[in-house]
Order: sequence, then structure tokens, then C-alpha cells
Amino acid sequence: MTMSLSAELWPEVQPETARRLMLAGVESFAQRGYHATTTRDIAGSAGMSPAALYVHFPSKAALLFAISRSGHEQVLALVKQAAENTDSPTDAVRGIVEQFVAWHARRHTVARVVQYELGALPEQEYAVVAGLRRDIERILRELVVAGTESGEFTVADPGTAARALLSLGIDVARWYTERHRKTPEKLGTEYGQLALRMLGATQS
Amino acid sequence: MTMSLSAELWPEVQPETARRLMLAGVESFAQRGYHATTTRDIAGSAGMSPAALYVHFPSKAALLFAISRSGHEQVLALVKQAAENTDSPTDAVRGIVEQFVAWHARRHTVARVVQYELGALPEQEYAVVAGLRRDIERILRELVVAGTESGEFTVADPGTAARALLSLGIDVARWYTERHRKTPEKLGTEYGQLALRMLGATQS
Repeated sequence: MTMSLSAELWPEVQPETARRLMLAGVESFAQRGYHATTTRDIAGSAGMSPAALYVHFPSKAALLFAISRSGHEQVLALVKQAAENTDSPTDAVRGIVEQFVAWHARRHTVARVVQYELGALPEQEYAVVAGLRRDIERILRELVVAGTESGEFTVADPGTAARALLSLGIDVARWYTERHRKTPEKLGTEYGQLALRMLGATQS
Repeated sequence: MTMSLSAELWPEVQPETARRLMLAGVESFAQRGYHATTTRDIAGSAGMSPAALYVHFPSKAALLFAISRSGHEQVLALVKQAAENTDSPTDAVRGIVEQFVAWHARRHTVARVVQYELGALPEQEYAVVAGLRRDIERILRELVVAGTESGEFTVADPGTAARALLSLGIDVARWYTERHRKTPEKLGTEYGQLALRMLGATQS
């Protein structure tokens, strides 16, 4: 079961051992925080020796970076796809918020590590992740600007609005659990509507 | 300078030594996470011995609880005040969001500890804080319901809408720093407008 979850979370990562370590890392970081977790804890929870961990990740920071980069790349891919699938800023923003919210609900444990342990990344690794975050925010902001210019949206400050839209989704990871009465997809749909309202969309 | 900041953060806490320990706790927890911080770290950063810390807080958990409870009580007081100062759900929701957002920006380091270390609280202490959180969310949800009944708002699910409004503010603590080009108050005003739009407010 752990094996299939890790394959579902990181289909692009090989071999399976590396994925198992990433999953053990996510669970440990989410539970105790990055700084209080040792590589020994992580290796042990993946049923491996610390030496086996170092074969795949030279350090705890390298493991955090793999988790963080992969999470950001997945989200950026969702955002790009939603933005490219339509010519209308209204549809694009709705699609992005739906996907973004559903990802943060479905992947809430991974998302918490991705969103809350940014400060623990070493400088160079942080720069890579910050670049991915800027790309995500830029795509959304440009759509808000485009929709404002086309008259679909009425927005005082596209930067503030784009940031607020992302906040709606990011914070879902903080409170969402499997016990919530709504599915990630249903929640995404509702937030898509709230997002368009925030932008003063003429149609929704 | 540390002394005056701690008095500003926790005017209700006495003596000053206890406030200094709370400030050292906030800084340590925010930087390294709760689990990776020792009472020795906190006492040292407040310029005290661990024994002096225990005079005021019997454990690291007791210190976290003092920080978390105080933060939640401050926010609940702001929310209650904003809700009571007006008869109109529109004005009340705007006021609450303005205050809530400004608090999370102005107090972003305290707020991060308050919002992200909930899981580290012992069961009984968590129950107290969870009660304060429920009060905050309930006040906002009841205002959304009242505004929907009076025709001021059009909302599909008041629970989802209230949660989303709180998310907007909570997430500000994650990204806001003093370097941001907008003051906490200015940001609060903008988010107040976004909030009313999300609720489909007839006037804003």
C-alpha cells in the first residue's frame, strides 16, 4: 500500500526505493517538522539503513528538495495545462483554481511539507523552488491582467488578487483531511466559483 | 527593544520575564519548529537559565500553549469587536476580514507559530485552542448566514465561504514580511473588498 501511494505521488521518480524514502520523509517532516527529523528516523521508517538512504539522497536537505521540487513541478504543470486549455481568462482562472485547490486537498500531507518547510531549503535549492513559485504566480497574475483588459474582470490590484487566489488553495492543505465531507474535486469547483467572484467576473 | 516588543505583543501577560520567554519561544519555534527547539534554547535566547524558565512555564508545551492561546484570544477579541460594532452583516464581515488580515500581517511571526504548531499542543490544551477557533469561525459563519437571509449576500455554502475567508487571512502570515510594499492596514482594506465580492455582496 505504501508502495502504490509513493508511485501515485511521484510517478516520475525512479527507483521505487527513492520514492519510499520520499514518502517516509514527507510523513516524518509533516509530523515533527524538518529540523526535528533525522535521516536515521526517515531511513528507519522506510525500513532501510541510513547508508541505503545516502545512496539516493546525499543529505536530509536533498530529500526535502526532491519532495519540494516535485510538488512544485506537479502544481506548475497543472496550472500550465489549465491555462493553455482555453482562450478565455475566466475559464483559465476557474480551471487553475479548481486544480490547485483539489491538489492541495488530495495531497494535503505532501502539500504541507512543500508549503511550510520552504525556509529549511539550502539557498541554491530554495532559488530553484522560488523560481517555480514565481512561474505559478506569474501565470495567474497575467491571466488576471488579461481578464481585466478584456473587461471580463474588475480588479484593483492584479498582484494582490493573484496572491489571494493562491492563498485560498494553499491554506486548504492546512485544514483538509480525508474526513472532510467534500471531495477535493467538489471543493475545487466551489473555490473556482469563489475565485471568479473575487475577480468581479462578468460571467461565472 | 525586545522588552517593548514583548509588551506590545502580550500586554495582558505579567511579569515581563514571562513575556520575554514567550518572545524567545516564538522566535525559536518560527525558525526551527517546535519539536527541534529545546527549553534550554529558549531560556538561552531570553538570557535566562532553564530553571528560570520553569518558574513561569512548567514545560515547553506550556509555553507553546501560552503563545497559542493568547494569539487566538487576541484574534477572537478583534473578531467579536468588529462583529458587535455594526448591525449590518456586510459591514461586520468587512471589518472582521480587515482586522483579521491586518493582525496576521502585523504579527506574522507569532501568527505562524499560532497557526502551524497546533498539532504540537497536548490534547487538553489543543481542546482549549480548538474551542477559540470554533468561536471565531462560528461568528463569521453566522454573519454569512445572516447576510444571506437578509439578501445582502448570495452564498452557496456559508461554511465553505467562512472557511475560505479565514484562509485568506491565515495564509497572509505565511508570506507577509516587513519588506512587503503594503502596510498590514492597507492589505486588510483590500482583502475586505475581496471578501465581500466572494460573498456576492450587493453593496461593498
